[in-house]
Amino acid sequence: MSAAIAKENTQIRFVKRPTGLYDPADTFKVVKEPVPQPKDGQVLVRIIYLSLDPAMRGWMNDTRSYVPPVGINDVMRGSAVGEVVESKSDALKVGDIVTGTFGWQEYAAVDAKQATPWHPGSELPGVPLSKAFTVLNMTGMTAYFGLLDVTDPQPGETVVVSGAAGATGSLVVQIAKIKGCRVVGIAGGEEKCRYLKEELGVDAALDYRSSTFKQDFAAATPDYVNVFFDNVGGDILDTVLGRLAKGARISICGAISQYNATEAEARGPRNYTSLIAQRAKMQGFIVFDYADRYGEAAKEYIQWLKEGKLKVAVDIQEDGVTCAPEASLKLFKGGNKGKLLVKVGSEPGEQ
Amino acid sequence: MSAAIAKENTQIRFVKRPTGLYDPADTFKVVKEPVPQPKDGQVLVRIIYLSLDPAMRGWMNDTRSYVPPVGINDVMRGSAVGEVVESKSDALKVGDIVTGTFGWQEYAAVDAKQATPWHPGSELPGVPLSKAFTVLNMTGMTAYFGLLDVTDPQPGETVVVSGAAGATGSLVVQIAKIKGCRVVGIAGGEEKCRYLKEELGVDAALDYRSSTFKQDFAAATPDYVNVFFDNVGGDILDTVLGRLAKGARISICGAISQYNATEAEARGPRNYTSLIAQRAKMQGFIVFDYADRYGEAAKEYIQWLKEGKLKVAVDIQEDGVTCAPEASLKLFKGGNKGKLLVKVGSEPGEQ
Repeated sequence: MSAAIAKENTQIRFVKRPTGLYDPADTFKVVKEPVPQPKDGQVLVRIIYLSLDPAMRGWMNDTRSYVPPVGINDVMRGSAVGEVVESKSDALKVGDIVTGTFGWQEYAAVDAKQATPWHPGSELPGVPLSKAFTVLNMTGMTAYFGLLDVTDPQPGETVVVSGAAGATGSLVVQIAKIKGCRVVGIAGGEEKCRYLKEELGVDAALDYRSSTFKQDFAAATPDYVNVFFDNVGGDILDTVLGRLAKGARISICGAISQYNATEAEARGPRNYTSLIAQRAKMQGFIVFDYADRYGEAAKEYIQWLKEGKLKVAVDIQEDGVTCAPEASLKLFKGGNKGKLLVKVGSEPGEQ
Repeated sequence: MSAAIAKENTQIRFVKRPTGLYDPADTFKVVKEPVPQPKDGQVLVRIIYLSLDPAMRGWMNDTRSYVPPVGINDVMRGSAVGEVVESKSDALKVGDIVTGTFGWQEYAAVDAKQATPWHPGSELPGVPLSKAFTVLNMTGMTAYFGLLDVTDPQPGETVVVSGAAGATGSLVVQIAKIKGCRVVGIAGGEEKCRYLKEELGVDAALDYRSSTFKQDFAAATPDYVNVFFDNVGGDILDTVLGRLAKGARISICGAISQYNATEAEARGPRNYTSLIAQRAKMQGFIVFDYADRYGEAAKEYIQWLKEGKLKVAVDIQEDGVTCAPEASLKLFKGGNKGKLLVKVGSEPGEQ
């Protein structure tokens, strides 16, 4: 038995490794193929939401990293949530909601073990699938472990977050507030700053595009910076390095200002030697290393959602998988507020 | 009762904050003053060896750091070992050997609590005062805690050390070998590399000035880098960042390539984003934070010295305190091999 399945599978394939900021038209190609048949032990997943993440830019480069680069002509890599529409595995049945690295396409035939049955969080009243997928999957786990495990923020400490209005950052600022910290959010533009202040309750929201940013930052961190969760790198990282408190901890989640830099343009944090004077550490992490502990985070997130302590913003691109290449640029141009998702197919029960 | 005391105290005073690499003639001034009289609770110390350290460059800058900058017209700051020649304190008596931040001068009158009675290490057979001062004081403590506490190296891991033929580096490579690590030392020039290989027993010694340094480094780290103890910064740090193993730990001891850089010249480690992919950390430290634990390190050092496991190289400038300004430049030009000391006065018992 299988649900209604289209005949055609629209895919976005990665066709050229970019240098610098990518041109979607050169980098990707739309391909239409027959919907694949799952083999024994596999399931066919109809994709509902595709997650667009800054990390994708790294996957396009042919360099040593935590995962191999996306191969030329492969379907572009991406995590997604979808519905099992055909199953040749005892582990999953038609109608199951699953998450996995299903790629930029409408259907994926994958081994059952590569499709993770969906969390109980999706059943929470008032939390739509798009938000539950955001908070209980990669984005939420990144915020949770990248802040709490890497930096161990203490009540009363000053926590600074860059990209604070983005998918991960907006969760980090809320977790830091829940944990009793003083939170300074950095974002681009007045609208995002207003959102941080009025909706997410940060103690100070600073626009890094402002000509007075450095002075504003100094004024907003009179006791210096105990914890910095950095999504951005570049000048912002240097500014924060110049204001570290003794024993500061920096969690390097990303460096979106640098992902599209060519080798000549790339720059490191000039002020890194303040790590010495302030006995500070700067540490990177990969969320997948915490896979065994996702349950801990999920439990706490679900509790916060139930208590109304957590707001989850999603920025849903409604035009199907073919809008992913162009839409993904919003990540690098600061265009999204909250989690950037592409709606690839309808939710169960929707038209 | 006091030992023979000269009438005049030659001092080096700091007279101008430099930009970039300092000119000793502009930056310092030789001053002769009467030898000071110790007040109640003070002692008069006749200085024997003055330590010249890269950290001094930072003390010349008027920036927020772990100690205030040296004031204009103050005696230049420096740590030293000397002999108590007059005492107005019950805590110390004439003839005691003491260490402290006595400055670039021949005599210092200091509160007794600012003069630390010398370690039992000075009594070790075959270890002259200059070497005991090196290994059981700031340099040795920096090597010990900066390696073992910050990076926790494990047997079989690959430990890379920059400035490996320098005062701190040459101790770090030997500690890492004693702890069972595979050690790659980086230094400038063939002679230093030969010294590292033949005298200190590193597994590989690489000349960063060589045109093939990057390839040599890749060849010398087939299993990548678990621990990096960095004294240098700049291109070397970038090269190592590009070869990190998963879970690597970087101890930022110094950045001698950057200390004399003007703001426009300063550069950060472009490859710092590999901290993310390799889940690595980069951590600074200040040796003074370990003051309560110096005894631990001293105990182990003394044991290693007794067992003949540790070689301590000293580069002694014999021409008195007035040679300190010019001699200190050796630190920044890569001229010293081992600990750079100025012999300010004779050792007890010497002519």
